Amino acid sequence: MEIEIATIGGYEEVGRQMTAVRAGDDVVVFDMGLNLSQVLIHDNVETEQMHSLDLIDMGAIPDDRVMSELEGDVQAIVPTHGHLDHIGALSKLAHRYNAPIVASPFTLELVKDEIESEQKFGVENDLVEMEAGETMPIGERCELEFVHVTHSIIDAINPVLHTPEGAIVYGLDKRLDHDPVLEDPIDMKRFREIGREDEGVLAYIEDTTNAGRKGRTASESVARRELQDTIHSMEDYDGGIVATTFSSHVSRVSSIIEFAQEIGREPILLGRSMERYSGTAERMGRVNFPDNLGMFGHRKSVDRAFKRIMNEGKENFLPIVTGHQGEPRAMLTRMGRGETPYDIESGDKVIFSARVIPEPTNEGQRYQSEQLLRMQGARIYDDIHVSGHLREEGHYEMLNALQPQHVIPAHHDLEHFGKYARLAKSEGYEIGRDLHLSDNGNIIQLVE
Amino acid sequence: MEIEIATIGGYEEVGRQMTAVRAGDDVVVFDMGLNLSQVLIHDNVETEQMHSLDLIDMGAIPDDRVMSELEGDVQAIVPTHGHLDHIGALSKLAHRYNAPIVASPFTLELVKDEIESEQKFGVENDLVEMEAGETMPIGERCELEFVHVTHSIIDAINPVLHTPEGAIVYGLDKRLDHDPVLEDPIDMKRFREIGREDEGVLAYIEDTTNAGRKGRTASESVARRELQDTIHSMEDYDGGIVATTFSSHVSRVSSIIEFAQEIGREPILLGRSMERYSGTAERMGRVNFPDNLGMFGHRKSVDRAFKRIMNEGKENFLPIVTGHQGEPRAMLTRMGRGETPYDIESGDKVIFSARVIPEPTNEGQRYQSEQLLRMQGARIYDDIHVSGHLREEGHYEMLNALQPQHVIPAHHDLEHFGKYARLAKSEGYEIGRDLHLSDNGNIIQLVE
Amino acid sequence: MEIEIATIGGYEEVGRQMTAVRAGDDVVVFDMGLNLSQVLIHDNVETEQMHSLDLIDMGAIPDDRVMSELEGDVQAIVPTHGHLDHIGALSKLAHRYNAPIVASPFTLELVKDEIESEQKFGVENDLVEMEAGETMPIGERCELEFVHVTHSIIDAINPVLHTPEGAIVYGLDKRLDHDPVLEDPIDMKRFREIGREDEGVLAYIEDTTNAGRKGRTASESVARRELQDTIHSMEDYDGGIVATTFSSHVSRVSSIIEFAQEIGREPILLGRSMERYSGTAERMGRVNFPDNLGMFGHRKSVDRAFKRIMNEGKENFLPIVTGHQGEPRAMLTRMGRGETPYDIESGDKVIFSARVIPEPTNEGQRYQSEQLLRMQGARIYDDIHVSGHLREEGHYEMLNALQPQHVIPAHHDLEHFGKYARLAKSEGYEIGRDLHLSDNGNIIQLVE
Amino acid sequence: MEIEIATIGGYEEVGRQMTAVRAGDDVVVFDMGLNLSQVLIHDNVETEQMHSLDLIDMGAIPDDRVMSELEGDVQAIVPTHGHLDHIGALSKLAHRYNAPIVASPFTLELVKDEIESEQKFGVENDLVEMEAGETMPIGERCELEFVHVTHSIIDAINPVLHTPEGAIVYGLDKRLDHDPVLEDPIDMKRFREIGREDEGVLAYIEDTTNAGRKGRTASESVARRELQDTIHSMEDYDGGIVATTFSSHVSRVSSIIEFAQEIGREPILLGRSMERYSGTAERMGRVNFPDNLGMFGHRKSVDRAFKRIMNEGKENFLPIVTGHQGEPRAMLTRMGRGETPYDIESGDKVIFSARVIPEPTNEGQRYQSEQLLRMQGARIYDDIHVSGHLREEGHYEMLNALQPQHVIPAHHDLEHFGKYARLAKSEGYEIGRDLHLSDNGNIIQLVE
Repeated sequence: MEIEIATIGGYEEVGRQMTAVRAGDDVVVFDMGLNLSQVLIHDNVETEQMHSLDLIDMGAIPDDRVMSELEGDVQAIVPTHGHLDHIGALSKLAHRYNAPIVASPFTLELVKDEIESEQKFGVENDLVEMEAGETMPIGERCELEFVHVTHSIIDAINPVLHTPEGAIVYGLDKRLDHDPVLEDPIDMKRFREIGREDEGVLAYIEDTTNAGRKGRTASESVARRELQDTIHSMEDYDGGIVATTFSSHVSRVSSIIEFAQEIGREPILLGRSMERYSGTAERMGRVNFPDNLGMFGHRKSVDRAFKRIMNEGKENFLPIVTGHQGEPRAMLTRMGRGETPYDIESGDKVIFSARVIPEPTNEGQRYQSEQLLRMQGARIYDDIHVSGHLREEGHYEMLNALQPQHVIPAHHDLEHFGKYARLAKSEGYEIGRDLHLSDNGNIIQLVE
Repeated sequence: MEIEIATIGGYEEVGRQMTAVRAGDDVVVFDMGLNLSQVLIHDNVETEQMHSLDLIDMGAIPDDRVMSELEGDVQAIVPTHGHLDHIGALSKLAHRYNAPIVASPFTLELVKDEIESEQKFGVENDLVEMEAGETMPIGERCELEFVHVTHSIIDAINPVLHTPEGAIVYGLDKRLDHDPVLEDPIDMKRFREIGREDEGVLAYIEDTTNAGRKGRTASESVARRELQDTIHSMEDYDGGIVATTFSSHVSRVSSIIEFAQEIGREPILLGRSMERYSGTAERMGRVNFPDNLGMFGHRKSVDRAFKRIMNEGKENFLPIVTGHQGEPRAMLTRMGRGETPYDIESGDKVIFSARVIPEPTNEGQRYQSEQLLRMQGARIYDDIHVSGHLREEGHYEMLNALQPQHVIPAHHDLEHFGKYARLAKSEGYEIGRDLHLSDNGNIIQLVE
Repeated sequence: MEIEIATIGGYEEVGRQMTAVRAGDDVVVFDMGLNLSQVLIHDNVETEQMHSLDLIDMGAIPDDRVMSELEGDVQAIVPTHGHLDHIGALSKLAHRYNAPIVASPFTLELVKDEIESEQKFGVENDLVEMEAGETMPIGERCELEFVHVTHSIIDAINPVLHTPEGAIVYGLDKRLDHDPVLEDPIDMKRFREIGREDEGVLAYIEDTTNAGRKGRTASESVARRELQDTIHSMEDYDGGIVATTFSSHVSRVSSIIEFAQEIGREPILLGRSMERYSGTAERMGRVNFPDNLGMFGHRKSVDRAFKRIMNEGKENFLPIVTGHQGEPRAMLTRMGRGETPYDIESGDKVIFSARVIPEPTNEGQRYQSEQLLRMQGARIYDDIHVSGHLREEGHYEMLNALQPQHVIPAHHDLEHFGKYARLAKSEGYEIGRDLHLSDNGNIIQLVE
Repeated sequence: MEIEIATIGGYEEVGRQMTAVRAGDDVVVFDMGLNLSQVLIHDNVETEQMHSLDLIDMGAIPDDRVMSELEGDVQAIVPTHGHLDHIGALSKLAHRYNAPIVASPFTLELVKDEIESEQKFGVENDLVEMEAGETMPIGERCELEFVHVTHSIIDAINPVLHTPEGAIVYGLDKRLDHDPVLEDPIDMKRFREIGREDEGVLAYIEDTTNAGRKGRTASESVARRELQDTIHSMEDYDGGIVATTFSSHVSRVSSIIEFAQEIGREPILLGRSMERYSGTAERMGRVNFPDNLGMFGHRKSVDRAFKRIMNEGKENFLPIVTGHQGEPRAMLTRMGRGETPYDIESGDKVIFSARVIPEPTNEGQRYQSEQLLRMQGARIYDDIHVSGHLREEGHYEMLNALQPQHVIPAHHDLEHFGKYARLAKSEGYEIGRDLHLSDNGNIIQLVE
């Protein structure tokens, strides 16, 4: 059976991930993501109303025109988890393919939101829910399986396409966490089984975000422990405490909520995306939030919540808000600018349970946000975080578990693929033979 | 005679410089500057219409309330050169004092501009022109002298207040340049004379911007040589070339103009401040620009100039524009955004004859500006620059020339004063004895 | 009563700490430390045989000649904990003073070792043990108290000299740890009491190592949690695992020992200083090591241990060795060079439970050590560590607890004191009034 | 005609460069270099007495075993310039091939030195001198040409192998300098001609040392101008001035000599390699040094020279010495340690006309060297330098001049090739098609 892999997006950047695998006549697409930074660099761009081709030209969504070179039919579109760089282009591209969108439950809910907010295209693909551990047939001879992985959002999976030539493991966006906070540990047992199966693993597409970084990515439980240490150290403080983190990182949000309560404060979630992700997780029963946990996204209800906090006393609350990267319109930045009813006073504490994504724009915005907060007397606690992506030792473990015939670095650019290649070479892979450094718009032929 | 020095502004930051010296009953004020970054961090602030106290609260202009503790009359306000962090608060503070503003000719012209654009206060202080090398009496027993120094703007001086107790040398903002481009070398001979005079130097206030940086600051002629090498290397290119630099840096602008002509291109200055500084220098006969050099600041005339460039062919021009720090509203940033009639095409060259002022906001904005330019195919040449401030070896040379009894580090914060103190200590000064680490709003008593 | 503080060493560097407080006729000396880097930069220097004055000239030990200006008798020499930069000059300087050395039990044991290895001077000062919480009289009107603090070595204390003018709190070298591993939490309650006492706190000498670093220093329990996550992740590995950390950091060593056992390996301590600190702690009953824990320092016994490991199988052991900074003669560096019987093989894991002390010499040596290890196939896990020094929020908490009249930043240089000064100023202190930026060899008069 | 390129060394590192081109039955080898850092990381390794295979195992010299897969005879070994990473393995590998070593005159002299100091192997290859602009036949249908380029050593060339299938341009180690100090400008005219010839350029092997660095590398004349500014600024100093730079950088040495004389000091060259390179250049008439310029390499004659300097007065001399990277055994480091008769006193000036090669080992050693100098009172002037390697705009110019069918990035590792690939892709090249990311030991088939 002919096997080809099209590396469509996210092979020259982090963002706008998209990869297609053709096995005989059947094609499966993994991820359709958005590169948000290519949007935000322009003023006043509203992607909801833009056409796909314009977004492709901007470098914002994957250039899927190479799909026409794959001789097969798309059988499934598989977003692997709910981050925008993996699902953000579905509303712009999925309608071109006559195939269902197959995702884990939490991911699928977020996909629905994306589709609903789309204003240009009607996306009518079937939405199929599939849990980690389950499988579905692809064409007559292949099978799609979801393996549970741990990442900075719940319900992340690594999809595996089982073909007669061996398995194709799409390994993006995970860390090897044996003690995550809301979920089961990563299913390394299943990866090892797949590695030992008769046909073995034909190809492994690897997440190289942290390529070149020594050691292993710590467990979410390590960040949780530091967060606990930090919040507990504030127990005696009788002023304002505010926390921010990735709103999609429901486990982290859940930890903050828990520790807020432990020091006798009412947690309250503020900001549109904070409401969206946590609200979805709660409605799905994926988290065990306290009863009556306040979550507010719309301007008016946020203002009302802030006023209640100011009336009842800041010392009784711990708002968890958007704005961990200093985004100019996010809640925390607005608080820094004095645009909300919440008064930041000298000595108030602001916890960034996040790391600045290292890019000058973010660094500048985050700096400005911190400056605005500091000008009002706030004290900053930052970097209470662990990455969601594996580091070198994770790469070694995955290669060891899967023993793939071919390896394809992804989720960054050639410079980082080069770093990963050094590692893969030390495990016996050779560039051009079984280690494939690809870029956007390229097709790799594995079995002819 | 009692001598006191009030360190009013610019002792906890770079920006809003202001220092006052009282000698007996007479007070001289050196600089009244603006800390622009404290303004820009807020949205939509228009300083022209703001009251002094609000600007003081924002940390934008010096908090001159300490002046009331100086028992004497202000006899002169002396801006040392035309940069905003030295003259930008004159229009907000000078009217409070019944004293003339005394400055070198080019500086005085820029002061006039500041005063004219002020909308809140009527500034009616006398404006007195004084050249480097000249003196004026201050009260009955003191004398004010201007010593010529070299900086990144023409006509910079170091004012010296000669008192019966010795000279007070206000040494901000210079490098020791023996081969500057438009001016005479720094007048080290005069500094050495002052150091040898009978009373010697009572106090030296030093520019610590580059404290802790090894070696000497190179001459402007070194930046000029690299600029020439760069522009000449583009001689065969038949597309667009654009340059940007500090608009107040008339020597640099003049070098770019010269090299543009050497490769057969018409230089043209675009942007409000570009027009202002170079226009002023030309009207005063301080530069020898080519006849008919175009300088345009107003939106309409800029657009007209750009259209002419596009019509006659980009290959015939070299626009010199504002925007070297990636300022969001500057000309180059607007060109990057496609908001001007000038089309940037693949291969076009953009020269930044400037270094990013190392602060995350600037770095983020500059990065964005470069990204916007690159997305259109521009090629970036950066860092073709030398600093306007002396480094360690300049500090040693000045101490050696002046042999001051007291040294007061200025033009930064305590962290940098600490770096300078290490150097001064190696020359025999002692903190608290003759090496004074001060901050904003403090008064140092030198002679009681 | 006259009160003076002499800032003798460690006010222009980290290392060679020494401070003396005179209260009336009585003087107490806090710390006599060694700046090891000033020794190591020279080849072949053996400090054991050197005279004090030569070591002073090298900048290696405090220049205590300023002591002659203090008009009083030394009543006690108080090393605050067992790190070399606090006790390393006792053997060179203590014999000059007719006063006992007073220290907590573990510190005192390490002081004894220092004195015994000294070859030039006979140090015959009385050695007096005093526990945290205890006090002793100093002269007729003062009292010395030890307050328990948490640092990266056990038994650290902050000494407090109670005088009729208020308490002098010598606050070097601690973090505010509420969940340390082998000890009680920091005794913040006592600090708060001292702050509320009638006379209050006259002066607080603060550890500015981390001045300018946002947030709080995490608890040792956070490093322990990450260490556990890391070591447990290696449970299935059947080759060599080696760990290194600060040999004086007995809590950390103890955690590594515990986790080694949890994954079924025998921990074994190798290297002279590893044997010394852990051996001392065990003999004193301060740790609960497994029975028969091997600790070897002498070359021959180390070689024998390595041979046993190689014979019985590397997979059964976890050597904990010296060399976390890549010191050229330390055990791990020798292992990297192949100078020991231990074979490092491809895939073997090396855990650095330490951070590189940020200085180019260390960085270069550590890099070389890692390179040597990597050339043999080792995998590096690094930075599993938390600092032993408080950060900004700890500074705020201490000022808040003690409410000192005067603050004296210490344990670094003026550049860092400048950073700390910014913080202290935001709490109302003023340079020259109650915030004293001092340097080596200076005397501050607090009460005249 | 079959054309293959073997990328043998320097494709995973900077150092041990070696590339072979097979055109039909004929093979030409470009460079046989040494990776010195792989030697120096070990203690006490003397390469002169080591066997090739051991050096290959250490990663110190190219692993040329892949040469056996090239079906052709080596007709020439072509070191392109005299740096060790290009000629340092000739003495270990060249004797295995029955082919002459062909090099430009200055390079050939340095090759002779290498061969003479070799103690393990007898290297008896013919040594053939060929000037830039000259050609020699290779087999029956090919021709080897040397094109003059500008680098940080004189007489550098880019060899071009003209084949019936087009030219192979080996483009390592150059900058595009239109105003170098001792030589002619780079011969861009000839590159442009080669690009326009009928067969055009089949392949271009590019120097990616500075891949990802914006702009162009400045001309040597820019470094010269800054050096002049620096040395002239010391004219009045009456103590010691010492300079260091790359001893192989004869143009730079020559500039320093010239400026030393301009300020009335006698230049004198000290250190083995300083004597070797400059001595060779002088004997060959390639520089115009002052009569009686002292050059001393052997310990005794160096000591004698230093004594003469101390006797006649340091103010009359300007020693130019080895040690710009802080190498532990180099002259400047020994001076810092006080191991030479030259006394460094407070205020003496040390000029580093070099940049630290950015690697932690170098940074650590250089830091130590500067510290030792500073501890004696020396003042450091550093970074007076321009790189010898082209930056992005040079890459664009070369691609534009040559219009090669295939591009092969070299002289670094995959991470840097990735950066270069981004640039090449913007010019229309595609990875795997005509842009070849290779590694050590690989063969690229261009024409089958």
